[in-house]
Amino acid sequence: MSWLSIPSGSHFSIANIPFGVISTSSNASPRPAIAIGDHVLDLDAFSRGGGFEGSSDIQKHVDVFSQPALNAFAALGRPFHRSVRSYLQDVFSKDGKNAAVLKDNQKLQDASLLKRSDVKNHIPLTIGDYTDFYAGKNHAYNVGCLFRGPANALQPNYTHLPVAYHGRASSVVPSGTPIRRPWGQILRAGNKTPDLAPCERLDLELEMGMFICRENTLGNPVPVDEAEEHIFGYVLMNDWSARDIQAWEYVPLGPFTAKNLGTSISPWVVLADALEGAKGPGIKNDNELLPYLKQKVQDNVLGIDLEVDLITAAGNKTTISRTNSKNLLWSWPQMIAHHTITGCNLRPGDLFGSGTISGTESGTEGSILEQTQGGKVPIQLSGGEERKFLQDGDTLVIRGSFGSGDSVVGFGEVSGTIQPPLPLFKS
Amino acid sequence: MSWLSIPSGSHFSIANIPFGVISTSSNASPRPAIAIGDHVLDLDAFSRGGGFEGSSDIQKHVDVFSQPALNAFAALGRPFHRSVRSYLQDVFSKDGKNAAVLKDNQKLQDASLLKRSDVKNHIPLTIGDYTDFYAGKNHAYNVGCLFRGPANALQPNYTHLPVAYHGRASSVVPSGTPIRRPWGQILRAGNKTPDLAPCERLDLELEMGMFICRENTLGNPVPVDEAEEHIFGYVLMNDWSARDIQAWEYVPLGPFTAKNLGTSISPWVVLADALEGAKGPGIKNDNELLPYLKQKVQDNVLGIDLEVDLITAAGNKTTISRTNSKNLLWSWPQMIAHHTITGCNLRPGDLFGSGTISGTESGTEGSILEQTQGGKVPIQLSGGEERKFLQDGDTLVIRGSFGSGDSVVGFGEVSGTIQPPLPLFKS
Repeated sequence: MSWLSIPSGSHFSIANIPFGVISTSSNASPRPAIAIGDHVLDLDAFSRGGGFEGSSDIQKHVDVFSQPALNAFAALGRPFHRSVRSYLQDVFSKDGKNAAVLKDNQKLQDASLLKRSDVKNHIPLTIGDYTDFYAGKNHAYNVGCLFRGPANALQPNYTHLPVAYHGRASSVVPSGTPIRRPWGQILRAGNKTPDLAPCERLDLELEMGMFICRENTLGNPVPVDEAEEHIFGYVLMNDWSARDIQAWEYVPLGPFTAKNLGTSISPWVVLADALEGAKGPGIKNDNELLPYLKQKVQDNVLGIDLEVDLITAAGNKTTISRTNSKNLLWSWPQMIAHHTITGCNLRPGDLFGSGTISGTESGTEGSILEQTQGGKVPIQLSGGEERKFLQDGDTLVIRGSFGSGDSVVGFGEVSGTIQPPLPLFKS
Repeated sequence: MSWLSIPSGSHFSIANIPFGVISTSSNASPRPAIAIGDHVLDLDAFSRGGGFEGSSDIQKHVDVFSQPALNAFAALGRPFHRSVRSYLQDVFSKDGKNAAVLKDNQKLQDASLLKRSDVKNHIPLTIGDYTDFYAGKNHAYNVGCLFRGPANALQPNYTHLPVAYHGRASSVVPSGTPIRRPWGQILRAGNKTPDLAPCERLDLELEMGMFICRENTLGNPVPVDEAEEHIFGYVLMNDWSARDIQAWEYVPLGPFTAKNLGTSISPWVVLADALEGAKGPGIKNDNELLPYLKQKVQDNVLGIDLEVDLITAAGNKTTISRTNSKNLLWSWPQMIAHHTITGCNLRPGDLFGSGTISGTESGTEGSILEQTQGGKVPIQLSGGEERKFLQDGDTLVIRGSFGSGDSVVGFGEVSGTIQPPLPLFKS
């Protein structure tokens, strides 16, 4: 289908065309690119070499490809993203109308078509605000049981509105960034006053992330049926969580230092258009919804297959969870509608997290807290190791994709390795 | 003391020299300025006209004065802010070594010394993240009583750590920006399911704001005794709050849409140095603090006199609260130390809110919720009006200052007027 050799099963098939920001050893300036098979196309170099001259609509906006982040590209809106994705699919197609521009131009290939293993990825968009939702109902129930017992596991508001809290934008980092085990306040069982100690219950949270492309002005809610046009695309997310610190600090204003130690995202933003086929029913909500959350389009929750690998310092690798992002009670348009109902303005580059995604079966949990029932039942790993929570040197890898064969639309992976705590304080 | 006529009692005395970002009808580009009496000094025009040539240290960094926000200036650190403030105090002093540069240069005065009433103020720094603390212990107790009863008013963690939550940066607006009464989910007394309706319990929150100037890298906490060097300066803040929406949504992850409808700040950032004399004891904390919150310097809570005026659509103006910012349990350095204890990175331009500031006496409350005991006892206004919460057309004005006579260090004011709700939804 493509004149470029793309391995079967590649997350970055010609059906995908995800956008990111790269730099290379020969050019340290961060710049936009797409991933295609085992390669990336440097969009700055491609556009400077005349690659977009086959489309006058794209050509007049090519300045967005010489920026260090995708915000300006995102702000041009979904019809423009669609044009660029279609054009690039055509460029890489064997019989593409515009294939010659790259296929037959060795100089442009040398300048713009790079091995993916040779590039460094950066945060794809400058993130204005990061909001973390809590739409994974199974996770919310499981964790609610552990923190407050089954009777109060889900609060009365849970099925009426997409619960969320404002997260920390500065600590969102790209895949591969090491995560330092944090110090913090921990109230140990039986004690009345907290200790200062390194986190003992460090955990992952398996989430999907979504980037906003279209702005709304302060005071003006986004109607739910227009919200799709505000979605740029999606990434995988690991919202690292210090469970012991969280348990002590989170009442009454929510998680704070337990969450701002780092949030890792996969580097390639899969455009909303590329995942149209992945939409389906989410978790059923039996409530009658208020008008601003009622959608004309039903069954629009994304269903992405997700996997979590834990690789220990000893090199033992175990897939500890397999689940799917359809385990959400709310769609992204509903989250946008609720986020803006009181007038909050969203800006291109704002990031939403879905909340942790867990299935209902054992082995489908999106956090270790759930899988170990609060640190009680260890997870058995290959090589005879086991874990109640993450240890120093552990690497977490999340992968996600939709489809199969030559038309996989995937995210690649988001990974992070736990570093030992700094020897900062005497406890 | 100054060759420029500065009215006695002006918030912008020569002892102050606060920094902001302005534009004018003849030059729409936002640019840095200081406020001085009834004037502002346009720092872009002043530096282009050679105004800083008397200091080679400042002269080599004057590019920061041609930026649309103060982030680059802030990032140069407190010793640099100190140099610029001292230099400008000298420029405006009757016997200043550098007074001639402006006093005797009519052309530079025409270009850079503008009437304050002729300029428009903008958000002074591009805000990366906004964090709202909850350090006003009297407020936390009062509101805790209303939401959860006296027994659980203050949570067990409250006196051990500065409670905070991540706020919304996009909806921080400069003084004068109208605030739209929001729609939202409201659970009415006796009901089991919420209504969608315009907020009926719209409130102010009287806070101080603080801007960060110095970055720390992810994973590296800021020691409390070094935290002062990370403080750029202070503003007044009104964190508008929809109490009915907040009560329904805030469990378990904290306030969300009830707070992101708008947060107003005063436009002139008073440098940390200008308020050294305002430091004193805050609210006493009887707990033994954990090491990372123990300060070598004691009694370093800022004591700023604060006033709140409510002006009705009919023009009746009433001062509804008089209080002081010493009513905080934690100092700004303690808030920085706690915010970063798990490794969170702060960036120049990040904004902290203190939490609502209330005294212990009637008439010193920082919110209407407290003063009306949850909307039960109306506030009596001049002209025979009364309020249980804010009405459409109400204007709130907060003023704050320290000192008296010719050496007042003040903030001017932060104001906002409530607009009626949009006719968006049928409820």
